Amino acid sequence: MHVRIINPNTTASMTAAMRLVAQQKAAVGTIVSASQPESGAVSIESHFDEAISAVGVAEEVLKGEREGDIDAYVVACFGDPGLLAARELTRAPVIGIAEAAFHLATLVSTRFSVVTTLSRTGIIAEHLLEQYGFRQHCRRIRAAEIPVLDIEHHPQTAFTRIVEECCRARDEDSIGAIVLGCGGMANMTQEISNEVGLPVIEGVTAALKLAESLASLGLHTSKHGDLAYPRPKAFTGKFSGLSDLDLPIKP
Amino acid sequence: MHVRIINPNTTASMTAAMRLVAQQKAAVGTIVSASQPESGAVSIESHFDEAISAVGVAEEVLKGEREGDIDAYVVACFGDPGLLAARELTRAPVIGIAEAAFHLATLVSTRFSVVTTLSRTGIIAEHLLEQYGFRQHCRRIRAAEIPVLDIEHHPQTAFTRIVEECCRARDEDSIGAIVLGCGGMANMTQEISNEVGLPVIEGVTAALKLAESLASLGLHTSKHGDLAYPRPKAFTGKFSGLSDLDLPIKP
Amino acid sequence: MHVRIINPNTTASMTAAMRLVAQQKAAVGTIVSASQPESGAVSIESHFDEAISAVGVAEEVLKGEREGDIDAYVVACFGDPGLLAARELTRAPVIGIAEAAFHLATLVSTRFSVVTTLSRTGIIAEHLLEQYGFRQHCRRIRAAEIPVLDIEHHPQTAFTRIVEECCRARDEDSIGAIVLGCGGMANMTQEISNEVGLPVIEGVTAALKLAESLASLGLHTSKHGDLAYPRPKAFTGKFSGLSDLDLPIKP
Amino acid sequence: MHVRIINPNTTASMTAAMRLVAQQKAAVGTIVSASQPESGAVSIESHFDEAISAVGVAEEVLKGEREGDIDAYVVACFGDPGLLAARELTRAPVIGIAEAAFHLATLVSTRFSVVTTLSRTGIIAEHLLEQYGFRQHCRRIRAAEIPVLDIEHHPQTAFTRIVEECCRARDEDSIGAIVLGCGGMANMTQEISNEVGLPVIEGVTAALKLAESLASLGLHTSKHGDLAYPRPKAFTGKFSGLSDLDLPIKP
Amino acid sequence: MHVRIINPNTTASMTAAMRLVAQQKAAVGTIVSASQPESGAVSIESHFDEAISAVGVAEEVLKGEREGDIDAYVVACFGDPGLLAARELTRAPVIGIAEAAFHLATLVSTRFSVVTTLSRTGIIAEHLLEQYGFRQHCRRIRAAEIPVLDIEHHPQTAFTRIVEECCRARDEDSIGAIVLGCGGMANMTQEISNEVGLPVIEGVTAALKLAESLASLGLHTSKHGDLAYPRPKAFTGKFSGLSDLDLPIKP
Amino acid sequence: MHVRIINPNTTASMTAAMRLVAQQKAAVGTIVSASQPESGAVSIESHFDEAISAVGVAEEVLKGEREGDIDAYVVACFGDPGLLAARELTRAPVIGIAEAAFHLATLVSTRFSVVTTLSRTGIIAEHLLEQYGFRQHCRRIRAAEIPVLDIEHHPQTAFTRIVEECCRARDEDSIGAIVLGCGGMANMTQEISNEVGLPVIEGVTAALKLAESLASLGLHTSKHGDLAYPRPKAFTGKFSGLSDLDLPIKP
Repeated sequence: MHVRIINPNTTASMTAAMRLVAQQKAAVGTIVSASQPESGAVSIESHFDEAISAVGVAEEVLKGEREGDIDAYVVACFGDPGLLAARELTRAPVIGIAEAAFHLATLVSTRFSVVTTLSRTGIIAEHLLEQYGFRQHCRRIRAAEIPVLDIEHHPQTAFTRIVEECCRARDEDSIGAIVLGCGGMANMTQEISNEVGLPVIEGVTAALKLAESLASLGLHTSKHGDLAYPRPKAFTGKFSGLSDLDLPIKP
Repeated sequence: MHVRIINPNTTASMTAAMRLVAQQKAAVGTIVSASQPESGAVSIESHFDEAISAVGVAEEVLKGEREGDIDAYVVACFGDPGLLAARELTRAPVIGIAEAAFHLATLVSTRFSVVTTLSRTGIIAEHLLEQYGFRQHCRRIRAAEIPVLDIEHHPQTAFTRIVEECCRARDEDSIGAIVLGCGGMANMTQEISNEVGLPVIEGVTAALKLAESLASLGLHTSKHGDLAYPRPKAFTGKFSGLSDLDLPIKP
Repeated sequence: MHVRIINPNTTASMTAAMRLVAQQKAAVGTIVSASQPESGAVSIESHFDEAISAVGVAEEVLKGEREGDIDAYVVACFGDPGLLAARELTRAPVIGIAEAAFHLATLVSTRFSVVTTLSRTGIIAEHLLEQYGFRQHCRRIRAAEIPVLDIEHHPQTAFTRIVEECCRARDEDSIGAIVLGCGGMANMTQEISNEVGLPVIEGVTAALKLAESLASLGLHTSKHGDLAYPRPKAFTGKFSGLSDLDLPIKP
Repeated sequence: MHVRIINPNTTASMTAAMRLVAQQKAAVGTIVSASQPESGAVSIESHFDEAISAVGVAEEVLKGEREGDIDAYVVACFGDPGLLAARELTRAPVIGIAEAAFHLATLVSTRFSVVTTLSRTGIIAEHLLEQYGFRQHCRRIRAAEIPVLDIEHHPQTAFTRIVEECCRARDEDSIGAIVLGCGGMANMTQEISNEVGLPVIEGVTAALKLAESLASLGLHTSKHGDLAYPRPKAFTGKFSGLSDLDLPIKP
Repeated sequence: MHVRIINPNTTASMTAAMRLVAQQKAAVGTIVSASQPESGAVSIESHFDEAISAVGVAEEVLKGEREGDIDAYVVACFGDPGLLAARELTRAPVIGIAEAAFHLATLVSTRFSVVTTLSRTGIIAEHLLEQYGFRQHCRRIRAAEIPVLDIEHHPQTAFTRIVEECCRARDEDSIGAIVLGCGGMANMTQEISNEVGLPVIEGVTAALKLAESLASLGLHTSKHGDLAYPRPKAFTGKFSGLSDLDLPIKP
Repeated sequence: MHVRIINPNTTASMTAAMRLVAQQKAAVGTIVSASQPESGAVSIESHFDEAISAVGVAEEVLKGEREGDIDAYVVACFGDPGLLAARELTRAPVIGIAEAAFHLATLVSTRFSVVTTLSRTGIIAEHLLEQYGFRQHCRRIRAAEIPVLDIEHHPQTAFTRIVEECCRARDEDSIGAIVLGCGGMANMTQEISNEVGLPVIEGVTAALKLAESLASLGLHTSKHGDLAYPRPKAFTGKFSGLSDLDLPIKP
């Protein structure tokens, strides 16, 4: 099985780190590859960054489809940018890391909190919780107030702040588990959990597992109804390469 | 007052038609200009088309901000693509035509139905209704099953189908008003309403009026919290022009 | 265009103050008139006060209809008393100031808080938020704990307390905007906003703008379904003047 | 125990009929008296009728409080007009017949439907279901399309239409019980249930029982918080009799 | 009328205490009997305890049905264990004490808080509030952090802690009433209310009253649809006595 | 890895069939064992059957814990009986087949329908959807109207009816996927999907995959908060074997 992790931002070191974490947790026989958009933002910390990144996600799925041997995709940014667009472009399962973390969190606890990077991104998580159905399961969205790239550049400071906020969540929020709200935190998960003493769910590996799950069950993204392949049409300017996509005939 | 209508698709005739409808309904002293992305899709009928179009919306807002005299923006596609991203990029109000139509519909009726183009786009409206809070106010999302560009190319057929579906909504849905689910229907609104005998709300003019309303009250997009200007950062590839945007200092 | 502001309470100075604020913000060509019930309460601070006031609102709409040249009505008390009853009595748009403020607040921020007068009226706002669909958009309803008429009688004290509570909302509630929960605060809006540094939305002018918006689009209150004119019938006692109202034939 | 049924409309025969049904079902030792407003509408079939009737409900509660020996009140119109206002005016429990019927229906079935008079009043029931929390428990609101007073004037026709609609509800709605949506149907309840073969819940007797329940447990309407006695104040015109009500000191 | 209180736990002193409280509040002519499972847990403080107890509840209902003269049942543990199962086994009304307390609380206040025993059981109340529709009516679930049996063994300490938590609820939660979250608190209700000064609702007597209400109205548990008698079938092992239950023919 | 499937009913052939389907889909290295309660119901088709079965589920988990080498449990009845109780008894993940199917369905489609056995069990699924957060994602719960054991005894008839209902769901419900609402349908999944042409999700294999996912990530059921091990206590009668369980010290 071949799972492709798409890092929606363009920071290669993050792509590599997430791939590594995922490969370590992959099932026997699962190959984890990773890619990142040629065009995009170095980090994603706003609706604007997300909008730009969604294009890269779609393009990476199209690239993956041309490669032809990918069984499932993971969209590895906590806002799940371009998730439904990506699903339209392929029969393979496509899993976002926010949704994956939320799903698994509800399976090991009745209520959880999210610890994310900057408070300004909290609304993105809030909208996703509403759309996915988990609003009642999430007690609170907390921010460690660290920019995404600081997780790489100042890992020790970042770790300390994240653990502090996780401990506050544990002590104040009446929860059983914590969801980490950034793909960049993936390789700290175990250490954070050790410090906090709760199940800590991180989306990259969560999504990998859901992707493997669907693929191994032969479950593909539905091509009946609203996730059918997009109708081919003309695109212009820097998106003209997307014109009349050679997608399978519907459905 | 200067209101800029951004058509998220690249079909210039639609841009012109929407600008005309809006100018006709504009307040005394309001100038309505319109633009469309250089890069984008000729029509928007899927999550994928939406994701691509959101970039164009953001770029058009940035362009508008450089022009410097725009008081409010309208995002003129019924999926409100890139709406929150656009709001981050400016202090000016930014209004989506779906949200505008929903808002006004709840002010003239207790319950409404939506009549859109293709049923596959219904889920986009459904997600917006949930996010905006109007899920209970919308009885049903109906589709006339006509592609967006057919509204221009086969206006009579389109009109007939839309009216048929509106009549079904009126007779079966226990509603008081109908929301038209596509900017391309803007110039048919009055005629449809005449046929159907209900208030029919169309988003382009609805958004224009909300934009004028906010601007005339001096209400700007909040720069406190999650709609603050995006943090400047590096973008790559075809988006490198977005790097280190010269946005006002926060907030 | 002629917009009639109906002050549901009987305090003439408040009626005049709200009319003045509205006229200042009105579009070119909009005449703002104002009225208040002959019979009613001097201020509205409870469900009981609201119930009494709703009658006055309905009667003022009937009076307005007899005048014959009113294009839209504003119900200028934050509980929107008698709003749906008023809508039944006219084809003209009727806008409540609570709903108007909520609607506009969601267009300039993702989440807002309300700052109202007395905490006992908070439940009224809460019920309205639920009915209108904005429960998730409002983080918190706060009270400055000042009776309505104190806003007029002790404006400086009132202003200070309101600003204090707005600042707490700004600092503690993760919001982008504040809604003022009383028509009596209308003429302090700009000053409050200056102090607090956030968009502050006040309902009287918000409702004026929505009223102008609907009227200029030719959108009337739906007479199809549940907002149709009431069935004429006999009323008794002090309401006998309402018997067999000479309303247009349905619809 | 003394339970006062307040018929919010002014049709004395309906008042008498509801009192009779209630007295037949009253507990040993419960006296059921009934009153109706001096001023009001002969029937309640719209938001407008409701707004007018709410005043009468409040006045009848005040009258009852002056009598001094009433242990609980029932507001006997299916829209529960003036319910929260009435609760402010007394420490005695006040029960609406819509809420009572909804409450009891959820205790004998998991899902129910409502059969009411005119479809235009459905929205009133819908709003109440939302406010009370029973939206999910009600599958559908159906109308027999008979004006309220026709239940008295053409009882056989009314009965036939109501039973027809109840049978449709039973066969199509996946329900276990039916709520009758008008106080005027109270004396048909048993016969309807016999025809339909389901538990049929009628609000007048349901409210009587809840009123008896609260009173016998010594549970009074909370005077802490938003249902505290209204602040005394001046009323004008035909409501001047309500000025400076001699209500108990808070709380 | 004969109401049977089923204590889902096996602590006979609690059964007796709850029966006594109920008998004191019963209507003239109501006999209150009480039973407890032969097999079960001495107290119920977890999902596991609840699951075990649900069997005892069902068995006690079957026993009651064989006795043949029971008009209504009360399930007297705050998690309402086995409530829907119990309803399937009888035409008599079956009322849970949690649901009963929630229902009555909404009739005397607009918002309430729950004060329960251990915080770990809070999630049970939370799930019930969601299922019953009262999520918005409950501001907060608080725990006095006392094990159920300590209410009997250390009544004074328990009382003090419960009152403390109730006072916090009164002062911090913007509520009008308090629901006691354990049947074991039933005989302290009046004293707690005296201390706290708010309506305090306790489920055993609340459920008794609702049971009397339904029974006196001739309203039985619906046997149409999902609460119909269970299909007879084979049970094995320690449940073999449940095989091919001699239940009435459906429905 | 060792995953234990617990069939909550006592029909050994169903246990074997579900184990077989699961083993076929298990990851390399996963051993799937299966058990069923000694005491329970031969099939589960009501709240009553569920209540009885929950005991068996708990007992099977306790048995599994004594075996000591089980990494995750699956509760293989579509009502997820005893799920939260089971989670309290172990640190291992415990997954219900209804929740598993719902979770995976939302990952391959935006909206799904459920096709279950008897319509009377629909309410169980409805309550689960509400508790899990998927109410909006499920368009409709449909029943093939076949008793559970008929799936084994008359597989061809059952298959035909299930496919018919699935086709109706596909054609009428605006969905992208179908969830099969009974563990007994597990071995028909592929064939049904072939007939219907949509992704068809079946819970046993879905739960297996989620169980493998959690276990392989080292995510255990949270022992912090409401899923902590139950407090040891005395049980009586046929449950006396559960007294003072030798569970790990909390947490």
